[in-house]
Amino acid sequence: LSKSLDPILALGIALPKGGRGGVLRSVHTQLRAAISDGRLQPGLQLPPTRTLAQALGVSRNTAVAAYDLLLSEGYLQARRGAGTYVSEARAALTPRARRARSGKPPELNEFWRDPPPLFPGMRPRAAAPRYRYNFSIGEPDASLFPFAMWRRLVGRAARVSSRDLLPSEPQGRPELRAAIAKHVSFTRAIACGADDIVVTAGSQQAFDLLARVLVTSKRTVVALEEAHYPPLRQVIRAAGARIVTVPVDLEGIVVDRISPRARIVCVTPSHQMPLGSPMSFERRAALLQFARRHGASIIEDDYDGEYRFGQRPLDALQTLDRDERVFYVGTFSKVLFPNIRVGYIVAPSWARAALVAAKQLTDRHTAVIMQDALSAFLTEGHLVRHVRKMTRVYAKRRELLLGAIEQHCSGQLQPIPSEAGLHITAKLLVPTLAATVLERAAAAGIKVQAVSEFTIGKATLNGLGFGYGGIADADVAAGVRLLANVISQVSSRRRP
Amino acid sequence: LSKSLDPILALGIALPKGGRGGVLRSVHTQLRAAISDGRLQPGLQLPPTRTLAQALGVSRNTAVAAYDLLLSEGYLQARRGAGTYVSEARAALTPRARRARSGKPPELNEFWRDPPPLFPGMRPRAAAPRYRYNFSIGEPDASLFPFAMWRRLVGRAARVSSRDLLPSEPQGRPELRAAIAKHVSFTRAIACGADDIVVTAGSQQAFDLLARVLVTSKRTVVALEEAHYPPLRQVIRAAGARIVTVPVDLEGIVVDRISPRARIVCVTPSHQMPLGSPMSFERRAALLQFARRHGASIIEDDYDGEYRFGQRPLDALQTLDRDERVFYVGTFSKVLFPNIRVGYIVAPSWARAALVAAKQLTDRHTAVIMQDALSAFLTEGHLVRHVRKMTRVYAKRRELLLGAIEQHCSGQLQPIPSEAGLHITAKLLVPTLAATVLERAAAAGIKVQAVSEFTIGKATLNGLGFGYGGIADADVAAGVRLLANVISQVSSRRRP
Repeated sequence: LSKSLDPILALGIALPKGGRGGVLRSVHTQLRAAISDGRLQPGLQLPPTRTLAQALGVSRNTAVAAYDLLLSEGYLQARRGAGTYVSEARAALTPRARRARSGKPPELNEFWRDPPPLFPGMRPRAAAPRYRYNFSIGEPDASLFPFAMWRRLVGRAARVSSRDLLPSEPQGRPELRAAIAKHVSFTRAIACGADDIVVTAGSQQAFDLLARVLVTSKRTVVALEEAHYPPLRQVIRAAGARIVTVPVDLEGIVVDRISPRARIVCVTPSHQMPLGSPMSFERRAALLQFARRHGASIIEDDYDGEYRFGQRPLDALQTLDRDERVFYVGTFSKVLFPNIRVGYIVAPSWARAALVAAKQLTDRHTAVIMQDALSAFLTEGHLVRHVRKMTRVYAKRRELLLGAIEQHCSGQLQPIPSEAGLHITAKLLVPTLAATVLERAAAAGIKVQAVSEFTIGKATLNGLGFGYGGIADADVAAGVRLLANVISQVSSRRRP
Repeated sequence: LSKSLDPILALGIALPKGGRGGVLRSVHTQLRAAISDGRLQPGLQLPPTRTLAQALGVSRNTAVAAYDLLLSEGYLQARRGAGTYVSEARAALTPRARRARSGKPPELNEFWRDPPPLFPGMRPRAAAPRYRYNFSIGEPDASLFPFAMWRRLVGRAARVSSRDLLPSEPQGRPELRAAIAKHVSFTRAIACGADDIVVTAGSQQAFDLLARVLVTSKRTVVALEEAHYPPLRQVIRAAGARIVTVPVDLEGIVVDRISPRARIVCVTPSHQMPLGSPMSFERRAALLQFARRHGASIIEDDYDGEYRFGQRPLDALQTLDRDERVFYVGTFSKVLFPNIRVGYIVAPSWARAALVAAKQLTDRHTAVIMQDALSAFLTEGHLVRHVRKMTRVYAKRRELLLGAIEQHCSGQLQPIPSEAGLHITAKLLVPTLAATVLERAAAAGIKVQAVSEFTIGKATLNGLGFGYGGIADADVAAGVRLLANVISQVSSRRRP
């Protein structure tokens, strides 16, 4: 046996038992792995194919084929008349190792070297704690969603999609856009047609696309409500905008306090996020006037405005817009379920081409099956029925919640008037920080939220937020009663 | 009747027949619309509720409720003891009109004021012409896709998703990531686990996320192959990077010619886009060395590398990467169908947190139903079976195409050697620009592509690209024969 065989024998190449088909693959893969990981060093001469074949107990043809493959892949080199060698080009490749990094990777740009969480304190899903009483904000109650119907529509959409496989319209399927236009015209008094709609992967992508086309990095000033939806802030930050915050009171954003340099103003007129109050008509008119005067754009985030409990049918801000200033952002996360990932923008005509191009650049279009199923869900009237049903459900739960707060937390919490949506916020009447209550409540098995989670730095309002989508009717009163105890304990401890 | 009633009567308010429930809504909506569009002017006094009720034939209560609603919405104002008026605040709002814009909207940032098309000459789907012979690049043949199975998996995923509605993992469903890791380990010899995978909305979003985290606007230099995938270029441009192009020959990108300032190098090692040649082992090694020396990252776009026809099992560039330099981008657009919109990145560990955060910021996560259906498709072995079947189908069609070119276009076209993918490219041997051939071919009902469609400015290679996913076996020869006539005509016309 040639001496060049030793390193090969040292590899202990194993061959498949019995079958024949896998022998070449097996020899080839194992030799390649040995070259890759350095067991066979660059420059090493390999035994002749006949020697290799005998040593391994394979046919000569197999050995020849294995060498040929490795030669063509560049793992081996043939030197004329001098045999076969492990390629020197391999020397360029050092052993694989996860680089142990100290500090931030310099390859990443500044923002992404240390990306902020989407929500402050957000934890990975798997690590998220479970609560006995869940008053999380932003979770709908999907237990009453007509899933059998939805499944049928998804199945049908999957069948239809087999006839149309090419990339779809970046703006969104025409049928879905028509259905959304009809829906928002009816429920939110927004005058629009299918052409005005841009379908997005949820409101998150809507914000991202808007930031993309409207923000010039390091120059554009964006005004956020002092308390706002943190993921929107992160999108604005990632786009490189300069953020200014604006006070919010019971009538909504204080328009007089918006910096005249702001070119984008982000608001939640139906149900201030997180305070809950609706923006007054006067403020709406003043905000539109501000936008017109300064050439500013307005992003109206109507995240849960479908659910309305007041006497008055509160329209969208967009309804009053006579000057193509307002981008209305809607989502199906709250009326269907969060992981559906479909939302939309009702966009002024002057921005539409840019938004559609940005959507196309970002992900070509939203998955067709989801769009088609949703389209049928709207046109067949299931959405209207579901919203009607859920409005009754949420109205009842909201009453239970407000009743329980009045009964158990009368000296502790004062709810902020609101007329829509899936959560309420209440002012803390005791001199204890909401963040402290939050922490103690969590230890007691209650998830509530603090207004300070929705602000940059200190919140001007010391308040707690209560979502009622993720909790059962039967648990509302018990949860609030337990919370009242928690508040009593922390506030009495503070004032001995 | 009071004189103040005249403007109201002029509105011709229509009431619903028969039913009672809609009367208030109807009166309220029509009055509001009239105020909104200026038929009822700010400051106008409205008739007393009793008068209105009589005139319209509705109950007094209905008239009172309608006024109350309009008052609370701010459309009306009550002046103490002096009746009800159309709100003066309305004066702030001018009539709605689509602004007739001259020039570009100043609200949009510079890039998006005039966004380039994703592909040069791209037209909206509805306006895209149909061809008798379609040799488009990038279209798979989905007619043989097992849609019945797919539909079943989608239906099952829709059923399961009803138990888990909250936002899902931004990195992608763990089961899908595990299935993808297994798939690419097996088919592309990529050593990775579920943790290394980031699920994206197609490769388009993969490029976008990579540009987001790696590019610093106006500073980062990105090297593209001279001929490349235009949508990738647009993503890089939109991120504000400085683009340099690098010559490509039959061994792939000419590494010696990459600017040492390049911090990102984008390549298509399995099947150069669009030339078709595989990158040689020496170039792969040299490119990895370049990346290591300069701290550069490599984006490996393996858009159709699943289909391999050569003797040698061509691995991914990532397989040779020992220094966490390569981002491998894969897609299911070519192995399933384009509008599924699921792709993935196999990412170095140092960039993963940033990519996941960017994905979350962009759209939270990809739709769960699509992820779960795909996950089942992979784990149940349907993907491997489908790729195996389609490799046979495409291999045959590719042979037909190469045979037809040899037979009919021998003096006109010289195919570039390739071993994978869904298209081939051929050099034009006649002194006629590919773009000219393209145009005449289109007029004759043939869709082919020109290398110049994939370059910035003039292409160094005057060649035509032929996709074979969108054409039936039976049409290949006839299409090529007809093309040969077209080429004869245009080239003889050029040389009289």
